[in-house]
Amino acid sequence: MGYVPSADLVPKVLEGDLRAIARLVTRAESGVDEARAALDDVFRHAGRAHIVGITGVPGSGKSTLVTALTAAIRRTGRKVAIVAIDPSSPFSGGSILGDRIRMGEIAGDPGVFVRSMATRGALGGLARGALEAVDVLDAAGFDVVIIETVGVGQDEVEVARAAHTTVVVSAPGLGDDIQAIKAGILEVADVHAVSKCDRPDANRTIADLKNMLALSAGPGTRYGVRLASKAGAAPGNDAAWRPPVIATSSVRGEGIDDLLAAVDRHFASLRETGELDARRTHIAERRMLAAGEDILRARFARHRDGRVFTLLDAVRTRRLSPHAAALRLLDELQPGGSE
Amino acid sequence: MGYVPSADLVPKVLEGDLRAIARLVTRAESGVDEARAALDDVFRHAGRAHIVGITGVPGSGKSTLVTALTAAIRRTGRKVAIVAIDPSSPFSGGSILGDRIRMGEIAGDPGVFVRSMATRGALGGLARGALEAVDVLDAAGFDVVIIETVGVGQDEVEVARAAHTTVVVSAPGLGDDIQAIKAGILEVADVHAVSKCDRPDANRTIADLKNMLALSAGPGTRYGVRLASKAGAAPGNDAAWRPPVIATSSVRGEGIDDLLAAVDRHFASLRETGELDARRTHIAERRMLAAGEDILRARFARHRDGRVFTLLDAVRTRRLSPHAAALRLLDELQPGGSE
Repeated sequence: MGYVPSADLVPKVLEGDLRAIARLVTRAESGVDEARAALDDVFRHAGRAHIVGITGVPGSGKSTLVTALTAAIRRTGRKVAIVAIDPSSPFSGGSILGDRIRMGEIAGDPGVFVRSMATRGALGGLARGALEAVDVLDAAGFDVVIIETVGVGQDEVEVARAAHTTVVVSAPGLGDDIQAIKAGILEVADVHAVSKCDRPDANRTIADLKNMLALSAGPGTRYGVRLASKAGAAPGNDAAWRPPVIATSSVRGEGIDDLLAAVDRHFASLRETGELDARRTHIAERRMLAAGEDILRARFARHRDGRVFTLLDAVRTRRLSPHAAALRLLDELQPGGSE
Repeated sequence: MGYVPSADLVPKVLEGDLRAIARLVTRAESGVDEARAALDDVFRHAGRAHIVGITGVPGSGKSTLVTALTAAIRRTGRKVAIVAIDPSSPFSGGSILGDRIRMGEIAGDPGVFVRSMATRGALGGLARGALEAVDVLDAAGFDVVIIETVGVGQDEVEVARAAHTTVVVSAPGLGDDIQAIKAGILEVADVHAVSKCDRPDANRTIADLKNMLALSAGPGTRYGVRLASKAGAAPGNDAAWRPPVIATSSVRGEGIDDLLAAVDRHFASLRETGELDARRTHIAERRMLAAGEDILRARFARHRDGRVFTLLDAVRTRRLSPHAAALRLLDELQPGGSE
């Protein structure tokens, strides 16, 4: 079977054709030039899904929790897509194996779509690819799109910030400190889930987390960015929502419905307070900026043998700083190619 | 005491004046516009130091190891600066406390400079600020500049890739998997250090790591980027260097001299094989690209109330994709301000 042009996949994606969805998601992930116009088209049809980010350090049990949460959402009749950002190295082949293992109870359900994406070390492409994959799944009619990420690092946090609702998962037994703080993701949490609450030391984790939240409660930190110099740009009514701490045990199946209720309640709160619009604006801005960076990188690559080469040599030999060189280059490069 | 213009700090930095160094490092970290020209100037004077990246997941004992390694380098008479990228949340105030705790045996030594930087959730600024801080310390005459990062995430990996020699620290007892693989940093390692080798389970960690290295050995993956489509762009003679695995115990003070010997041997190998030039070119390119992105972000911010606002609204309401909007914007924005 030959290559189906991406433009021809779009109508099928909008009808929910799983094969077409899988193909276009793959092209979004890989950043295929040919899919550019189709992905722009898909974006215009998206915007109905509830995007839920689920993040936590390795070992926090978030994959198991995502599976349990997905099953719970399915019982309400909603369709669920999962985009898992898998930090496995290319050596491990972890993605494919992971997809098989994780499906478990939701395997074979046509109302569930799972895709793992490896972080590739390449600059920037991951966040763009993952978010365009989310667009495809959103436009395809999935009611909830879950983005699962390891909650450390710019790329992952970038993806988590594109969610309407972000769940931060903490687990007992991973050290004395509050894991979310160590990972720098406390601020992005709309809902806290403590996993493995069948363990006796879970109460300590829950108590620590609640104490920390009581200490840090306050508006203006939602995006984890200190906005002292332009506080007005941040959504202002976060005080209406206090992130709850939900105790869960995937093993015992406990707390999963509570978690789903908290996630749904948060989305309802976003709508009621008007915060959803503010958040959408924020997401649009971040994605536009990220797209600008992608275009910039493509232009650098295209002029690599010419002007880029000359300036690069000046930087390498320390005749020109990276900043001064970039400034010259940015205003000389012309658009072109498949942009 | 008033604000000393950054241009006036530069000659003092070049003389090794610690107070001037600390000030300019702070301005680099914060991205102060006024320091732009001074930092460009400093960059032209840098390039002599051996930049060593030390990275590992939280709990791997890398801070303790960095302290021990620093003491060992000092015993050879060389001056050492440490830039620690601290993922603590703004809530924790971790940086200042951390600086005091970590100094330990190297506290008060004027041949050692330590600065912790918090990751701020802000896009991009961390890598730029950290690397310009390294320029300052390099130009100030520190023989070795150690960049310590949590080895997860784009920002941290970006900083690690700016090092000439990258040490990846693994510890026993952090899980069954190879931590470096989970964190996606196996490929950036020039030297592997296993910490806490006073523990009985350390042998398992060492054996696992060696097995994995034997399996994955091969050229072309040094930068963690699969360069299939342009293999020629990657430094080609990696086969000359096989990353050694060094067993260390900071508690017992064992293996630290071995680690230093491996780090020094790697730098010598870079020089002898000509790989150092290739690596410098790679670093120059990445920094130039990152600077381009910073400039782009500054322009977005400056046009926020005008053209950016209009396009943002089109993206928010899904009339235009982020990519299409960025494309229009990129070719309309004009330079200005303190660029």
